[in-house]
Amino acid sequence: MRVADLGEFGLIARLTRLLSVPADPAVVAGIGDDCAVLRLAADRWLLATVDAQVEGVHFRLEWLSGEDLGQRVLQVNLSDIAAMGGQPRFALVSLGVPATTPVAFLDGLYRGLAQAAAEAGVAVVGGNVTRMPERLWVDLTLLGTVAPDEVLFRRGARVGDCIGVTGWLGSAAAGLAVLANGLSLPAEIVAPLLAAYRTPRARLAEGQAIARSRWATAMIDLSDGLSSDLGHLCAQSGVGAEVWADHLPIRPETRAVAAALGCDPLAWALDGGEDYELLFTAPPAVAEALARAVTAATGTPVTWIGVVRPATEGLALVEPDGRRRPLWAGGYDHFRTSGQGG
Amino acid sequence: MRVADLGEFGLIARLTRLLSVPADPAVVAGIGDDCAVLRLAADRWLLATVDAQVEGVHFRLEWLSGEDLGQRVLQVNLSDIAAMGGQPRFALVSLGVPATTPVAFLDGLYRGLAQAAAEAGVAVVGGNVTRMPERLWVDLTLLGTVAPDEVLFRRGARVGDCIGVTGWLGSAAAGLAVLANGLSLPAEIVAPLLAAYRTPRARLAEGQAIARSRWATAMIDLSDGLSSDLGHLCAQSGVGAEVWADHLPIRPETRAVAAALGCDPLAWALDGGEDYELLFTAPPAVAEALARAVTAATGTPVTWIGVVRPATEGLALVEPDGRRRPLWAGGYDHFRTSGQGG
Repeated sequence: MRVADLGEFGLIARLTRLLSVPADPAVVAGIGDDCAVLRLAADRWLLATVDAQVEGVHFRLEWLSGEDLGQRVLQVNLSDIAAMGGQPRFALVSLGVPATTPVAFLDGLYRGLAQAAAEAGVAVVGGNVTRMPERLWVDLTLLGTVAPDEVLFRRGARVGDCIGVTGWLGSAAAGLAVLANGLSLPAEIVAPLLAAYRTPRARLAEGQAIARSRWATAMIDLSDGLSSDLGHLCAQSGVGAEVWADHLPIRPETRAVAAALGCDPLAWALDGGEDYELLFTAPPAVAEALARAVTAATGTPVTWIGVVRPATEGLALVEPDGRRRPLWAGGYDHFRTSGQGG
Repeated sequence: MRVADLGEFGLIARLTRLLSVPADPAVVAGIGDDCAVLRLAADRWLLATVDAQVEGVHFRLEWLSGEDLGQRVLQVNLSDIAAMGGQPRFALVSLGVPATTPVAFLDGLYRGLAQAAAEAGVAVVGGNVTRMPERLWVDLTLLGTVAPDEVLFRRGARVGDCIGVTGWLGSAAAGLAVLANGLSLPAEIVAPLLAAYRTPRARLAEGQAIARSRWATAMIDLSDGLSSDLGHLCAQSGVGAEVWADHLPIRPETRAVAAALGCDPLAWALDGGEDYELLFTAPPAVAEALARAVTAATGTPVTWIGVVRPATEGLALVEPDGRRRPLWAGGYDHFRTSGQGG
């Protein structure tokens, strides 16, 4: 049996089982959430997460500058801290680099990383550089803190809760489609989409506002795609969900690009991945107040896109015409498909 | 300019300069020591380190089992925690893996990692898996803790201090030479050397005994090689050093392999790398008592191999015949040489 036969999530599930060890009372949450949650001090818990960006798998050098990549590798990890309601603090960066890589590209990468870190209040405190013959990869570990009574997990969603998202869905997929197809459209259409793909901005302030409200019941960041990540949240919470297609927040620019390419913007919103928005749940009685509080604190819109249902109902998409269909996890699996994706 | 023109340490120095940021009072030590040291709680500081093992750069699949690799990737990081006198606690593992990799090999890797983690009291709390077309890499982040009044840095060595090492030097290089040359020698000769290369054991208890004595002034682990790592310790401490060639602790088995291959065992001890022993300094008045305490607590021998000298004298090797020669950092540079090494 080869890795390709298992796929990404099958492999992760299999390997995770091999790591099960006697319970450590300091481990509040281990593998299976956006971050590990570790009880090192009584008043602040430690958050830890790691994520890699690999040339030709997560990005192409001709589509990103060094600065873009440096920004991006921090933002995708900041997004995991945001999903717990945490505050990022320290980063360690591990680099695999071909001997032929132009130093100027790496200078840009580190400048982009340093700028993103400074903006997020993160100190880059360690790292490693190793030779990698064929292609560049950057692996970043991010540490943060969170108040024990504010942390949000993937588990915790309850039947009847509303399902909310920050910002917009499908923008990064639209930006990627512009690059992959060499599409020429007016700058005011493509600029926000290219920025969403190249330099996503983690929803740190939004995550903290959601967590500090004490109203939300569960949260996850959207890295693999709504269908896939909602599936993770539901699996951890032991629930199902119903998503309303005509409520999904899709930018008009995304619809314009989809129309130009003959693509379905709904598919990008559901499965595109790399949006790095936050998906969260809250009881209906507080949903509107929570959305107002988040938008007031951050300027970011919140949209309610569905409702938590019993686990027996699985994940369902309600189409604009009212028809229901199963919502399959269509997020990107690097081991099973070729090309670009989250 | 390409990465190969700068070399590993030149690249690290250049990139580190780009990350210099306003001082964060929580960062006791950042890039430049074996671990970052972070002030998160008053009574225990957090240690953080990251290190990668890359197929064909750090290991060859035909020389290591999956279990060996899993053990090894944890041990090389445990060694960095040991060098600060710390206690390891949590690991995050990031994996880059070809789709064609046999799942059985990864099962072994995770079993080896889980076993090493359990033995060291480490919980594996997070990870990431990504597709890597050509070759396997494993990047491991290790977190630990240390008492603020016990932590040891690379800085702190003073002129006149004795320079000590735990265990033996050059064993891993000898084991690698056995594998690379397909050497046939009796098992009692090659077995300890192959084990030293394949599954090094971090000197955790030794590091803690050295740190808790409060007698040592500086410490580093030997990953790149004595000449290179002593150079790092001296640079951070602002001192020079004199090393006595005939005091270097070299196993008789290492000498036997060197003789069979026509190699110089002294070169392996100085430049071989991957021994993962500890190098530390202490004032002459306490040196013998410190060595006795470490050996009594751990069973591991300590050998005094030289003395700290003023920075103006640089690093010198005193040959068995009394001649002095400059000790160059001959540790392995992945970007400038080909083949296998630390």
